[in-house]
Amino acid sequence: MTFTPTPRTTSLRVPEKLRYDAEEAYAILDEAYICHIGYAADGVPRVLPTAYARIGDTLYFHGSTGSRAFLNGRDNGVDVCVTVTIHDGIIFSRSWFHHSANYRCVMAHGRAYLVTDEIEKWDALAAIVDHLAPGRSEQSRPPTQKELAQTGVLALRLNEVSVKTRSGGPGEDPDDIGLPYWGGEVPLRTVALEPIPDDDTTVPVPAHLTRE
Amino acid sequence: MTFTPTPRTTSLRVPEKLRYDAEEAYAILDEAYICHIGYAADGVPRVLPTAYARIGDTLYFHGSTGSRAFLNGRDNGVDVCVTVTIHDGIIFSRSWFHHSANYRCVMAHGRAYLVTDEIEKWDALAAIVDHLAPGRSEQSRPPTQKELAQTGVLALRLNEVSVKTRSGGPGEDPDDIGLPYWGGEVPLRTVALEPIPDDDTTVPVPAHLTRE
Repeated sequence: MTFTPTPRTTSLRVPEKLRYDAEEAYAILDEAYICHIGYAADGVPRVLPTAYARIGDTLYFHGSTGSRAFLNGRDNGVDVCVTVTIHDGIIFSRSWFHHSANYRCVMAHGRAYLVTDEIEKWDALAAIVDHLAPGRSEQSRPPTQKELAQTGVLALRLNEVSVKTRSGGPGEDPDDIGLPYWGGEVPLRTVALEPIPDDDTTVPVPAHLTRE
Repeated sequence: MTFTPTPRTTSLRVPEKLRYDAEEAYAILDEAYICHIGYAADGVPRVLPTAYARIGDTLYFHGSTGSRAFLNGRDNGVDVCVTVTIHDGIIFSRSWFHHSANYRCVMAHGRAYLVTDEIEKWDALAAIVDHLAPGRSEQSRPPTQKELAQTGVLALRLNEVSVKTRSGGPGEDPDDIGLPYWGGEVPLRTVALEPIPDDDTTVPVPAHLTRE
């Protein structure tokens, strides 16, 4: 499936290489842990880091029902831009100008709505927990009615989405190649360290927490 | 130095623990590599991952002079929310509800202006390169006049800033402690792998690229 480009998901600049493949976007969304969700609050922008999960073509975010985003989204929805960025490396070029980053970035635009359907909300919360570690929702206690009431879930249908990535080494000007400077990439990786149980934990580290 | 809280940097909710210490904010800004800068473009929010650097109490961002943010910022500045998030770990709780993240997050609000002073622009670009690896700007070629003209730099004075962090293990409900589930933290770290030189590099890996 391919997303249809819109004015918001196309570049003003010619050289920007934006793509619209849904599978590529979904893979990035599923790999990263947090998104940055942007919305207007009292007329000024606000960018929040937030946990999320994808179910099919919908992205779900959770948060307190008392936060600005959820208060705004309660009635008619809230216009958001959700950006997920995986920073894969730093590009060191022979020139200041061509220093850059390797990354994979998904930007999704649209109006997010508060989820009111109880089953959809339950499934979204399970997906957000499972996004942290697949299978985790079955090895932890589901929410009580009171917890459900305290938790808001926003849903954004993914249909206005762009993907932008960069990989490979520096793009040098030909005249710079001979300069006596190091050029290349320093790859970055996010790694999970050994799980640290709290003092009350009596069970061994479950398989869903030992990532390959 | 402490930032003065404003309506934008205070929470609607009582339990949010926002702080305003400048040194703490600066340390987070200096450690992370990318920010997410949010602004309104044609009335809708837009969130972009961007390289940046801090000089004193000013944050600098660079980008193409043809991008929306820079076109908007050219004349009267552009209202932004800049968020820098370091994701330190995933919190696995015995309940879905108390799953969480350990993180350090800085949110800065204000109007960013296009830098027109040539010396300030030069210093900002050097700082952005040095933010990737301290000392790098002296071991790569500074910009030509043409490159300078193609590069826009936005400046945001840091005076409306909040810091939010979480650390430690899960906050469990007392009734959940006895549940047969694992509770604790999976720490996350961003690590730099071995530098990968491009085919034209003839010099050894410089000291500024081998981080301790």
